[in-house]
Amino acid sequence: MNLIDGNEVAKVIVAELTEKVSALHNSKPCVNFVRVGDDPASISYVRKKEKTAREIGMESRLQVYPESITQSELLQKIDLLNSDSEVHGVLIQAPLPDHIDERIIFNRVLPRKDVDGFSSTNVGKVFQELDDAFVPCTPAGILELIKRTEIETTGKHVVVLGRSLIVGKPTGILFLAKDIPGNATVTFCHSQSSKVSEHTLKADILIAAIGKPLFVQPEMVKEGATVIDVGINRIPDLSKKSHFRLVGDVDFDSVAPKASFITPVPGGVGPMTVAMLMANTLKAFLLTLE
Amino acid sequence: MNLIDGNEVAKVIVAELTEKVSALHNSKPCVNFVRVGDDPASISYVRKKEKTAREIGMESRLQVYPESITQSELLQKIDLLNSDSEVHGVLIQAPLPDHIDERIIFNRVLPRKDVDGFSSTNVGKVFQELDDAFVPCTPAGILELIKRTEIETTGKHVVVLGRSLIVGKPTGILFLAKDIPGNATVTFCHSQSSKVSEHTLKADILIAAIGKPLFVQPEMVKEGATVIDVGINRIPDLSKKSHFRLVGDVDFDSVAPKASFITPVPGGVGPMTVAMLMANTLKAFLLTLE
Repeated sequence: MNLIDGNEVAKVIVAELTEKVSALHNSKPCVNFVRVGDDPASISYVRKKEKTAREIGMESRLQVYPESITQSELLQKIDLLNSDSEVHGVLIQAPLPDHIDERIIFNRVLPRKDVDGFSSTNVGKVFQELDDAFVPCTPAGILELIKRTEIETTGKHVVVLGRSLIVGKPTGILFLAKDIPGNATVTFCHSQSSKVSEHTLKADILIAAIGKPLFVQPEMVKEGATVIDVGINRIPDLSKKSHFRLVGDVDFDSVAPKASFITPVPGGVGPMTVAMLMANTLKAFLLTLE
Repeated sequence: MNLIDGNEVAKVIVAELTEKVSALHNSKPCVNFVRVGDDPASISYVRKKEKTAREIGMESRLQVYPESITQSELLQKIDLLNSDSEVHGVLIQAPLPDHIDERIIFNRVLPRKDVDGFSSTNVGKVFQELDDAFVPCTPAGILELIKRTEIETTGKHVVVLGRSLIVGKPTGILFLAKDIPGNATVTFCHSQSSKVSEHTLKADILIAAIGKPLFVQPEMVKEGATVIDVGINRIPDLSKKSHFRLVGDVDFDSVAPKASFITPVPGGVGPMTVAMLMANTLKAFLLTLE
């Protein structure tokens, strides 16, 4: 069994981006974060992203608005960022308050600044395999882990557990693309699927993004498979001070001995997400030079 | 074996649309076709679509431009149609001349008039399962055949042969949606897939959209499967006056005895495409009333 260390791969990507950004003499890529309200998780995510942007030498900006901001006020703020030529990437941190329609907000970000990749236009471009698409950060991180671990995908069978709009579906679609990594036979399973084990047992690469703690057990995994765990679940653990611990969708301890490659949780896919956001921001900047 | 008669189903849909359109008192849905050059197949397709629109009681318009039209001239023509409030659906007939980038043309059509469903924004909306998406006509036709034949899809295994942007990929994505028909386990195979028969043999519903004449043979099909043939291939046949005949991607004569339901070629998926274009046009019209 080989561990795929997401922290290490993310570090390498951050180092590469740092070098690329320092080679840009006259201007810096700038990513602009918008946060609404004071959700502790959102504060922490945005802080981590800002920190990484600074580390790479990118400019980062942040606007924080109160929970009470109206949808139309928030749309106006996005319009300002769309028309600000100094801002290359715009990220509206989810979740937004209930009175705001996230879909309308995400779709307001100009496609060429949509570094999160959540707008319909960008989702369509990913599907259409267009070069100027921004691949959403988690799926992009998964593919990058596969690529840098030099795991063959052409003609292999990838089984994706989960059909969410931001992980399961786009990840499977990327593995199906006429690209490397890609060119795989892809099966999607989900909550309505029957005989899930029959499918997972055939997988050369198994992507677990179903949000069920420890769902993937060793009897569901083919000997020698690559197992990518996207799940982040809290389960009770009285031995911990916090009384919980984080586990993935894969029962790591029992599955790892059967896998040729496997990602841990935490420290697998998670750290890649921020790195890929920064890669998207550099891409958005470079698109402005074309 | 039960034949799924696409001509019959398309007729029923056309009759339903006719009734719905006649119930609209003050105005009519209007679809606008744009043809460039004199490709005989394009002339014939557009004529068939115009005829069906008239039959339903929709208004149809057609502009024909010479092969020599420049891309920017064609974009200007599309802008005029976008801003024409009397035009609800705009269809630019493919293929376009080589000096014109189809992607740029298709993306110029306003998403709410994009009845062909080829723009990136619309493709993204289909992927995101949004209500105002226009499902591209061939995938929409396939799902409609499944729905009206009352073939169960939830939890079933759909295997799609082919990963084209306008048929294979969107069709599989529709079967995966949280909808009925949908909720299926979906596998995509294509030219880079290995052991294709192992996958197809598991399919409850097999969609052949790979463009290889008679590719699907009986030993690849599970007893009792539903087989949908999207292929339209010419093969030599000296017994015919034209010296060729049309066949699908499925060897119909030998596969039919094993299938519970099967579409013929011609007369299966093909006739549905035009019917679904008209359904999309009515939808575009109704969206203007919201």
